[in-house]
Amino acid sequence: MNNVKLTISYDGTCYGGFQIQDNAPTIQGEIEKALTVIYKKPVRITGAGRTDAGVHARGQVANYYAPFEIPVKSLPAALNSLLPGDIVVTEALVVPADFHARFWADRKIYSYSIDRANFPQVTKRLYSYHQPDPLDLSAMIEGARLLEGRHNFAAFRATGGTVRDTVRTLYRVGLVDFTAQQLLKLEIEGDGFLYRMVRLLTGSLIRIGQGKLTPEELSEALGGSNPAAAGPAVPPHGLCLERVYYKEFSGFA
Amino acid sequence: MNNVKLTISYDGTCYGGFQIQDNAPTIQGEIEKALTVIYKKPVRITGAGRTDAGVHARGQVANYYAPFEIPVKSLPAALNSLLPGDIVVTEALVVPADFHARFWADRKIYSYSIDRANFPQVTKRLYSYHQPDPLDLSAMIEGARLLEGRHNFAAFRATGGTVRDTVRTLYRVGLVDFTAQQLLKLEIEGDGFLYRMVRLLTGSLIRIGQGKLTPEELSEALGGSNPAAAGPAVPPHGLCLERVYYKEFSGFA
Repeated sequence: MNNVKLTISYDGTCYGGFQIQDNAPTIQGEIEKALTVIYKKPVRITGAGRTDAGVHARGQVANYYAPFEIPVKSLPAALNSLLPGDIVVTEALVVPADFHARFWADRKIYSYSIDRANFPQVTKRLYSYHQPDPLDLSAMIEGARLLEGRHNFAAFRATGGTVRDTVRTLYRVGLVDFTAQQLLKLEIEGDGFLYRMVRLLTGSLIRIGQGKLTPEELSEALGGSNPAAAGPAVPPHGLCLERVYYKEFSGFA
Repeated sequence: MNNVKLTISYDGTCYGGFQIQDNAPTIQGEIEKALTVIYKKPVRITGAGRTDAGVHARGQVANYYAPFEIPVKSLPAALNSLLPGDIVVTEALVVPADFHARFWADRKIYSYSIDRANFPQVTKRLYSYHQPDPLDLSAMIEGARLLEGRHNFAAFRATGGTVRDTVRTLYRVGLVDFTAQQLLKLEIEGDGFLYRMVRLLTGSLIRIGQGKLTPEELSEALGGSNPAAAGPAVPPHGLCLERVYYKEFSGFA
């Protein structure tokens, strides 16, 4: 029984999030529906991360056990012909039987896009958070540097997270200013993320940019002594799961 | 009675085009509805160009005669609070009484975006035409050069156009390859455009890129001897009215 790894991109605007639920269409639900059409049997998938309602992905990963073998090369096109236009499978690979999209994930990259134009840019409105306030980018970069490394991110977790160990390592917190496009993009690469952590971290960095929070206060939030310095969480539609890395993954096909 | 010039951006996905009609919501209709709320009297606007259903704009221009004077500085924010999120007014100016958004237009810039990724990029799918075929960019640039200048574009007009004089001047036909984004963007600046002209020109250039049409055949279409070299028209959702220029417009406020 083949274990198949899918790379999935989606526009989360119209979905209740990745994970299947009763009250709203979900990414997982749509993909399982399409796989069930292809295999003529119910198929369950396991995602690398459960993105919230309205959050997008360019490189979500999921795996499933195929009821029977079909050539994976033609699978993305077959799935895309069944999926709505806002969900696109970009790759399918056969992976080792014990591969698990979540547990095997080694690193993830999230991006958060901020629209800096005076008025919202219409063609970016679904994929960026409109925030026209003047922002002190140098202070934000200083704050971003403080976040890099191994820290206890307990203050940067929304209620609803159940994980006990709140220590995570952020390898990179980059700020890219696309001046011509009036877009500011935050890119965060880490070994794992707590519930709403990226949106809470982004909220803190924006407050630093607005002069409402100092990098020192952010430091204190990381130390646990100043939880009020965390957040508030920025809206979901600026967030995108860009990529999931797996450690020993060059040998598979 | 103030003559007011509005600069308008919109995501045309959900509209039947700019011009008001009975069968579908339109950009003009939504803006007139919002203006009517503000002025408490029916207001009609005149647009610089009638974009088709599904076509976007970053810099459409319209003007209207205000039933009474209100400070235009606060007008964009007031209008945007009444408009749906996919229509955004970015500027309002008082202009001379005889200013006419269409007749006074001196030059326009349209862009056409082509998504070159293997599978459609979901966050770009509403604003670009997915065309993953290999394209010969040098040949396309050669074709673009031939289009620049003063030509008879009669072959590049869809039925439905009523204008008699089909001679137009294209000041610039630029091809920008955003490699990292897998986007190819065509930018066309001209003194005027026939019905569906940009989409037909883009269709010809893509065929040149695919090796299905030679730059020479495109030249013949401009001469009028080979109308079959024109088009086919590419879909509306890759098209965007970027900007409308007015000749003597620096003095107004």
